[in-house]
Amino acid sequence: MRNKKSTSPILMLDAPERNADLHFASGFWAPDPLIFLATATRGFLCVSALEQGRALAHAKAEPKRRLRIVTAEDLRLRGKRRRSLSEWAVALLRQEGIRRVDVPATFPLAVARRLEARGIAVRVATERLFPARAVKTADELKKITESQVAAVAAMRAAIGCLRAAKIDSGGCLRRGRRRLTSEDVKQVIHATLLAHNTWCRDVIVAGGAQAADPHDRGHGPLRAGEAIVLDIFPQHMGHGYWGDLTRTVVRGKASPALKRRYAAVKAAQVAALAAIRPGAACAKVHGAAAATLSQRGFVTEVRDGQPVGFIHSTGHGVGLEIHEAPALAPVAGRLQRGNVVTVEPGLYDPRMGGIRIEDTVAVVRGGWKILEPCPHGFEV
Amino acid sequence: MRNKKSTSPILMLDAPERNADLHFASGFWAPDPLIFLATATRGFLCVSALEQGRALAHAKAEPKRRLRIVTAEDLRLRGKRRRSLSEWAVALLRQEGIRRVDVPATFPLAVARRLEARGIAVRVATERLFPARAVKTADELKKITESQVAAVAAMRAAIGCLRAAKIDSGGCLRRGRRRLTSEDVKQVIHATLLAHNTWCRDVIVAGGAQAADPHDRGHGPLRAGEAIVLDIFPQHMGHGYWGDLTRTVVRGKASPALKRRYAAVKAAQVAALAAIRPGAACAKVHGAAAATLSQRGFVTEVRDGQPVGFIHSTGHGVGLEIHEAPALAPVAGRLQRGNVVTVEPGLYDPRMGGIRIEDTVAVVRGGWKILEPCPHGFEV
Repeated sequence: MRNKKSTSPILMLDAPERNADLHFASGFWAPDPLIFLATATRGFLCVSALEQGRALAHAKAEPKRRLRIVTAEDLRLRGKRRRSLSEWAVALLRQEGIRRVDVPATFPLAVARRLEARGIAVRVATERLFPARAVKTADELKKITESQVAAVAAMRAAIGCLRAAKIDSGGCLRRGRRRLTSEDVKQVIHATLLAHNTWCRDVIVAGGAQAADPHDRGHGPLRAGEAIVLDIFPQHMGHGYWGDLTRTVVRGKASPALKRRYAAVKAAQVAALAAIRPGAACAKVHGAAAATLSQRGFVTEVRDGQPVGFIHSTGHGVGLEIHEAPALAPVAGRLQRGNVVTVEPGLYDPRMGGIRIEDTVAVVRGGWKILEPCPHGFEV
Repeated sequence: MRNKKSTSPILMLDAPERNADLHFASGFWAPDPLIFLATATRGFLCVSALEQGRALAHAKAEPKRRLRIVTAEDLRLRGKRRRSLSEWAVALLRQEGIRRVDVPATFPLAVARRLEARGIAVRVATERLFPARAVKTADELKKITESQVAAVAAMRAAIGCLRAAKIDSGGCLRRGRRRLTSEDVKQVIHATLLAHNTWCRDVIVAGGAQAADPHDRGHGPLRAGEAIVLDIFPQHMGHGYWGDLTRTVVRGKASPALKRRYAAVKAAQVAALAAIRPGAACAKVHGAAAATLSQRGFVTEVRDGQPVGFIHSTGHGVGLEIHEAPALAPVAGRLQRGNVVTVEPGLYDPRMGGIRIEDTVAVVRGGWKILEPCPHGFEV
């Protein structure tokens, strides 16, 4: 499954919760750093004695590799060396007679230098180490869909909360006697995600100008008539796969200008989806969305130091990472059957706010399939 | 505040959410990778144009350094180079006339090699880059206490849920018509943490033999008469500081053997706390807990391949990371006023289960101060 540039074993040293390649290759999800060594036919997972029980119960290598769980005891490390992951790596490589390894670009510099000092050649892999991650199995699709189902439930709850809000004389939304804030809506989203065994720390509920900065997660009172971007991307707490979903709504009446923008973004999403099929160039999918927006007169540029228009790419892969391959962006590459991608065009302008519509789809024979449908609609 | 081994500027490249040093030095919390360069008097935070607004609003360097926010535009990078963080680093270092940097041990190998290829000397720092992190300011103490308050509230809710459970004829706990599971209690904890704007993905509710493996987070039905370990370590979603709290309880009657173990662990915590004061050797604090347990006849050893007894260290620092300096363990180092540490002795045996009692304290003049009290008690 790997590019043929190197036949060296792959060495990884990280916490699986922070390193999706390590999680994918070992099948093991843990908060503490550990080592995984992948040769052509075998996988070695080095964990502390404390983790051995969990590793034996849960870890499993990709089908093509036989897995062995190894502890510091097995490597006969004594004293201080038992606590050094670098020493674990050196001992394991020596035991297996390995003198050169490929490592990911993020491999810790200090460990690389220690390996080199012990005569091991360390090459930074420029190709993806586990390209198989981009092509989901049926089991992976099921897991991503579980997280997407949670996102849809949370979106329905959040929009229900906005719909139920009263509008006060100042144009602010109210729930009972209090102003309804982004924080309130986020609490509704968090609670729904939790009930689905998922979480999304950085959920976005951003109204008006806040939403024109795609990295502003939103805060404070929400207002009628402004576009409110809701972006929910939960990770499943059991298996670690993500979902991703965005809707933009207006409580009350939207201005004609906002409606034109919403219609343009919706058309851009339809155009991008129409371009998705196995073999389609990723850049073409992005181009379809971008062309739709520019044909409708929306210019992407930097104005007064702030980017306005369609200021991000059309989508990204979703799996064990919230952003992974393939990218729907002006880059090389073609879609494959089994890819899971978001399709999320948007328009941003600090004077108007932000509008983004995002669904997550699987690439299937002849086209695409939505993982879990979620209603569309602008005014609520 | 830094060891005097090097006077080179410090270069970091990571996502502040994954790198507490970067978060601490820049005062900026973001999910995406960015660059921070710290010279003796200045801090440079390089972010994408999308992050510039948030960075200007939220970032602030340590008091001793003047902060400058820099974007790819400011560095006059064009084309592909605008998207490469390595190129940002090279351009920034050139602009400032810097030819050697210190980097953390986890610095990404690929970036280090690119810097070296451009004539920049890269040294891995062996000392801590920001030792000031271990000595908390009044503002930091307040933030850690906020998370600790959330942990105490969640603990009270969880224990209330166990106390309210009925015991069925098979010895299982019941809530209404259903068996009460670890997962149910975790939901109660998650909901309470959320209401305090905190989260703890890996919360532990582990009964019986599950708790003898300190890395087992617990699952399935809970039983009367077994020790149930509840370990709650929430991070604040607003500012990122953590809290940490553990209690062990038995629903119904505990056996005399379990009671002896609980009393020993409680005594070990008291002994460790009695040893805490500014200037105390960290190893002595750990030694006080360990000696108390061995004097009461509890042996720490590996039995049938599984560690039993007091199988971890007495505590760890808490701040922007859940595990940070100082360690209450058999290592060099002394406590300082302003340290925040957990004190969490425990006893583990697969035949008896696990018992751990943990509070988080600040080291103050002449001793320690608990951040937020939480009731103790074994049988509920």
